[in-house]
Amino acid sequence: MERHIPIRLGQVGGGVGAFIGDVHRIASRIDGQFVLVAGALSSTPERAEESAAAVGIAPDRTYSDWAEMARAEAARDDGIEAVSICTPNHLHVPVAKAFLELGIHVICDKPLSATLDEAKALREVAQGSGALFILTHNYSGYPLVREAREMVARGDLGAIRVVQVEYPQDWMAEAVEEQGVKQAEWRADPERAGAGGATGDIGTHAFHLARFVTGLKLDRLAADLSAFVPGRRLDDNAHVMLRFEGGAKGMLWCSQVAPGHENGLRLRVFGEKGGLQWFQEDPNALHYTPLNEPTRRLTRGGPGTSGAGARIPAGHPEGYLEAFATLYNDAARAIRGGDRGLLPDVVDGVEGVAFVAACVQSSENDAAWTELDI
Amino acid sequence: MERHIPIRLGQVGGGVGAFIGDVHRIASRIDGQFVLVAGALSSTPERAEESAAAVGIAPDRTYSDWAEMARAEAARDDGIEAVSICTPNHLHVPVAKAFLELGIHVICDKPLSATLDEAKALREVAQGSGALFILTHNYSGYPLVREAREMVARGDLGAIRVVQVEYPQDWMAEAVEEQGVKQAEWRADPERAGAGGATGDIGTHAFHLARFVTGLKLDRLAADLSAFVPGRRLDDNAHVMLRFEGGAKGMLWCSQVAPGHENGLRLRVFGEKGGLQWFQEDPNALHYTPLNEPTRRLTRGGPGTSGAGARIPAGHPEGYLEAFATLYNDAARAIRGGDRGLLPDVVDGVEGVAFVAACVQSSENDAAWTELDI
Amino acid sequence: MERHIPIRLGQVGGGVGAFIGDVHRIASRIDGQFVLVAGALSSTPERAEESAAAVGIAPDRTYSDWAEMARAEAARDDGIEAVSICTPNHLHVPVAKAFLELGIHVICDKPLSATLDEAKALREVAQGSGALFILTHNYSGYPLVREAREMVARGDLGAIRVVQVEYPQDWMAEAVEEQGVKQAEWRADPERAGAGGATGDIGTHAFHLARFVTGLKLDRLAADLSAFVPGRRLDDNAHVMLRFEGGAKGMLWCSQVAPGHENGLRLRVFGEKGGLQWFQEDPNALHYTPLNEPTRRLTRGGPGTSGAGARIPAGHPEGYLEAFATLYNDAARAIRGGDRGLLPDVVDGVEGVAFVAACVQSSENDAAWTELDI
Amino acid sequence: MERHIPIRLGQVGGGVGAFIGDVHRIASRIDGQFVLVAGALSSTPERAEESAAAVGIAPDRTYSDWAEMARAEAARDDGIEAVSICTPNHLHVPVAKAFLELGIHVICDKPLSATLDEAKALREVAQGSGALFILTHNYSGYPLVREAREMVARGDLGAIRVVQVEYPQDWMAEAVEEQGVKQAEWRADPERAGAGGATGDIGTHAFHLARFVTGLKLDRLAADLSAFVPGRRLDDNAHVMLRFEGGAKGMLWCSQVAPGHENGLRLRVFGEKGGLQWFQEDPNALHYTPLNEPTRRLTRGGPGTSGAGARIPAGHPEGYLEAFATLYNDAARAIRGGDRGLLPDVVDGVEGVAFVAACVQSSENDAAWTELDI
Repeated sequence: MERHIPIRLGQVGGGVGAFIGDVHRIASRIDGQFVLVAGALSSTPERAEESAAAVGIAPDRTYSDWAEMARAEAARDDGIEAVSICTPNHLHVPVAKAFLELGIHVICDKPLSATLDEAKALREVAQGSGALFILTHNYSGYPLVREAREMVARGDLGAIRVVQVEYPQDWMAEAVEEQGVKQAEWRADPERAGAGGATGDIGTHAFHLARFVTGLKLDRLAADLSAFVPGRRLDDNAHVMLRFEGGAKGMLWCSQVAPGHENGLRLRVFGEKGGLQWFQEDPNALHYTPLNEPTRRLTRGGPGTSGAGARIPAGHPEGYLEAFATLYNDAARAIRGGDRGLLPDVVDGVEGVAFVAACVQSSENDAAWTELDI
Repeated sequence: MERHIPIRLGQVGGGVGAFIGDVHRIASRIDGQFVLVAGALSSTPERAEESAAAVGIAPDRTYSDWAEMARAEAARDDGIEAVSICTPNHLHVPVAKAFLELGIHVICDKPLSATLDEAKALREVAQGSGALFILTHNYSGYPLVREAREMVARGDLGAIRVVQVEYPQDWMAEAVEEQGVKQAEWRADPERAGAGGATGDIGTHAFHLARFVTGLKLDRLAADLSAFVPGRRLDDNAHVMLRFEGGAKGMLWCSQVAPGHENGLRLRVFGEKGGLQWFQEDPNALHYTPLNEPTRRLTRGGPGTSGAGARIPAGHPEGYLEAFATLYNDAARAIRGGDRGLLPDVVDGVEGVAFVAACVQSSENDAAWTELDI
Repeated sequence: MERHIPIRLGQVGGGVGAFIGDVHRIASRIDGQFVLVAGALSSTPERAEESAAAVGIAPDRTYSDWAEMARAEAARDDGIEAVSICTPNHLHVPVAKAFLELGIHVICDKPLSATLDEAKALREVAQGSGALFILTHNYSGYPLVREAREMVARGDLGAIRVVQVEYPQDWMAEAVEEQGVKQAEWRADPERAGAGGATGDIGTHAFHLARFVTGLKLDRLAADLSAFVPGRRLDDNAHVMLRFEGGAKGMLWCSQVAPGHENGLRLRVFGEKGGLQWFQEDPNALHYTPLNEPTRRLTRGGPGTSGAGARIPAGHPEGYLEAFATLYNDAARAIRGGDRGLLPDVVDGVEGVAFVAACVQSSENDAAWTELDI
Repeated sequence: MERHIPIRLGQVGGGVGAFIGDVHRIASRIDGQFVLVAGALSSTPERAEESAAAVGIAPDRTYSDWAEMARAEAARDDGIEAVSICTPNHLHVPVAKAFLELGIHVICDKPLSATLDEAKALREVAQGSGALFILTHNYSGYPLVREAREMVARGDLGAIRVVQVEYPQDWMAEAVEEQGVKQAEWRADPERAGAGGATGDIGTHAFHLARFVTGLKLDRLAADLSAFVPGRRLDDNAHVMLRFEGGAKGMLWCSQVAPGHENGLRLRVFGEKGGLQWFQEDPNALHYTPLNEPTRRLTRGGPGTSGAGARIPAGHPEGYLEAFATLYNDAARAIRGGDRGLLPDVVDGVEGVAFVAACVQSSENDAAWTELDI
């Protein structure tokens, strides 16, 4: 009988308030496989300390210099086993190298780097290291995306002919990088984001998703990039035609200026024997059409799927867990002396039981109107 | 600068393999506000020990008797501050009482109890206790459900006239309780579930959701309950007409025998000035119609909402976090020496950066076909 | 080789501007099976004449008194063979009787009458007449509604257990009958509409649809009717529980005060072996779930359907014909000397062909940018 | 008071059984603006005669040679005023010329011609003719497509940046042109269809729709055409990048080999101030997003629209008229002595009225169970 022991995790970047840093922390906690014990959450010492305290990292394992953190943690007996990198793109490579070279596993946000040369340099380091390098192309973690990959791999669609992938957003339709929106600032800055704007930020996700599901290798592409917002230095819209090895063709569209789309990542794959469609904003459904048959709506963990990767039953959207967590969060606040807010209490419970009792009584009484006995 | 310290949590029921026990554990971890340190996860000692070990509870805080656990934990300096109750319905009340009487906060699954008398007895205990009693009507934790409640409360819909709520499922359309499906066994057993079948299990959720969003108090109901599956002793379908105080009327339908519905909880509320609709299987959208205007699709955290309760930006379904967590889970397996499985690696990263570079190069070259430099 | 000759049709009620009168006229023309040659479109002579002229009825076959029309047409060699009745409800029975008794077929709008006694009286007349009596429960004309009926009849769903039908609207959420909305005036007036408001106007449609698809006979019902709009004399919302012969149960909801619903007629039928769903606002899809299998989206005329009743291929919504007709309508206006409006012309045609030519040329030239040669 | 007199129409091509010929006939009848009096429905005399008889054309106005028909009709006092051309593409131009030169208006199916040279030649003839030339790009007849055009024209979206249009189908995913599918044969034959396969058949529709709604003129394109089905001589999939005058960019995808898509014509337009989306398979909805506001679902004739072009109220899909027409069609069959089929009759009517009466009685009796008095 082996006892569960979480892996010791550190984090670089992702000070409190940063979107993706918080996502990495939450993701690392959901299955209880990691415990966050060290961090260089910011290069500004004060912000680094505040952020670390807010997430429960001890003062002696709080750093503002990631190089120092790497050295110090590697030297401890109880040092971190893995590090999560949540910095802007241009720091991914130097940070990853520092930890990999000390034998610490790296979990790194995408894109890998700001330049292709750096990316190749990291490839050498990573492939020569005993430590793992993991890139968080997180859309490949959706159960139905993995299901889709399996379907293609086992030939359900026959040879693939056409791949349509798109990732439209609308949050950068105006020059928000000049209006103090932090998330936009570094994404619109070639020094920190690299040569691609929308292509680097979301195009890489769309590209990986297409690759992941189809297994096809891209042979060449023809691209038309635009920066529609006046003054923007990186592309905010890209139209790309794709040719894959083996003859399949495709289109990729990514945009940050498409009003009405929040995170509209959508993949459609068509083969000789069928087609499928998956949409990130409705991730619990995979639409599968065998040629000349009606379209079937497969659900995560539902009939006709492997059920792999599903934490909760079909029909509960994956956000079910977050809604549940909100109650726990509210409970924590109340337990710490804050107000109960909207938490259901025993009176709600009595009402619920009284509701059942009234239903039973009314039904036994030929559906007579029955008051609740509360 | 205050350091974050999680609340010490215990759990009764929910041995490994139980659906709702695992949901409570995951929910308690997502925001890092709780740490699970004690448990009576099963009344069978061996199963209690295995389950506790699997979730990382220390042997000296592993119990098979919840009454003993209550006494022992209350006596420790570092004893649990709160307990999560995940047993079948008929045990909710005795367990809750035991902990509340020792001043330990209770987070309890629904329905409150198997009988109305017990529910009322617990109400007295809970209201006289210094400890908190929290019932996990988890659908009230969805950000857009809370948004809906606020909209009704501030009068966006005017006086409410009609409330339509339904919760159809299909997993009990056959006699699965006789085929070894554990989840069905106790739900179909009046000794453990109480007087209501579908009404108790899902009808109470639908009822609470309607109450929570509208704030209306139910005056009376007329119900027609059925057990369609031969041999079933509790209702598996309920049709209920509702009359609320103040004149609003409604219908509630819950069913476990409706093929095509997994967890189809849906609420529609209509008032003098507008209507709204929320559907659990698409929880990130709230459809709002001001009278004589087009229907608007509000998204969690999107334009026109308060954004309260949203952990991630609009457009990312809440399951985004679980997909991310799947990568962390896979990473933990790999770090512990297992295989990488489907984890993206540095080669994927190089490809992504090469994709961006090719896009930029092709676009600069009038969309000429460009190979990836990998 | 038999030549097609349309049936000679008359119309009572439905003067120009009336919704349902125009619907009957359009419907009678679509398949070219009828030609409208006589009419008593209004009881006001002047309005009767204007309306008749506007729809091309000759002056000598224009009437303002339907009794006179019945006598006169019955006496002509080329008299009408059938009559379409589009009056308010309370006139359906006397008009229908008059024509049936003279051997003229009757096509009558629903509901059959304002009172049950009248309905029964008409039943006797109709059953004793050599002429046909046809009631336009038009939803039974949708191809996929007929498909659903066949599926139930041949046992695809097994024995039916639960029938959920609803017909919510929002156009009478305010007292529009007092604001000059003609369509609302007679529907809210017990003298002209009968004892039922929403129940008579749309509840009868929902009821017929459930009956038509399931073939089940209603045994009894329990109803809760409301008039939510102050001053309204007939119900504008009805909650009804249904019990069918053989043990199936159901719910029917109809409402004229549900903001966000235009004509939300929806039917769901659940049996031992499967379930199906059809929604009038998406009439070209029928969702069918065999128990324990993924839901299939059947389309009108698509794979897995009989294709019966489809005028156009799957994927073209039935409104395709109306859009096409709009071009013909515009063409008629232009031919009569009016402006072309938005009609595509030869320049559009050249552009289209130039588009194809440019596509072919660009593709042959390795996707080089190519201008249109127009 | 002017009496309505329909326009005299002839037809070339479209013998019984042809899809588009029947569509033109139905479309011409819906609003009663045309009456079909002459036709050269086939070049095979016997088929021409049978087809003409079946649609009610008199023998003396039945032709098998369209040139003869043009001369003969032009010579009659009651000759046709307009002709509808429904032949394969390569005949459009010679037929159109013949009628235009005799002063007869032409309503012609798309694409204009098989070659660009012919198209230009026809342009000269049409522009020099006193008669009208009308090309049936029928998607421009949808009320909400016209609404979209108006919205763009009046600046609701600001300057247009991105235009995404697609038209995927799946019916030619196999070599159906070699399996006796007539509709596929000529479309896959360069002699009859011209240089474009999917591009000519459906790409021209997509292109026109984008042009029609945005008003933007295409400057250049880059295209990648494929013929995926072995042996096919024309493209069955096209990826096209678009650049419009003024700087807007776009993508066009059309395909006949995309399983799961029947007629998936979809247009999305994004401007500086908002975005909109229209989908042919859900033509009664137009999704409009003003930048930084929630998406609004506009419905045909519903709040926030002009209502122009709507024959029936919002909420009734346009297919409502066809379903209604099906009842009329069934009625014609019954009147001619055939069986009633599924036509509702007086017994249905009595049931409906009894349903209302039972609802009222039950409701007055506190929702007591009430049997139907039939």
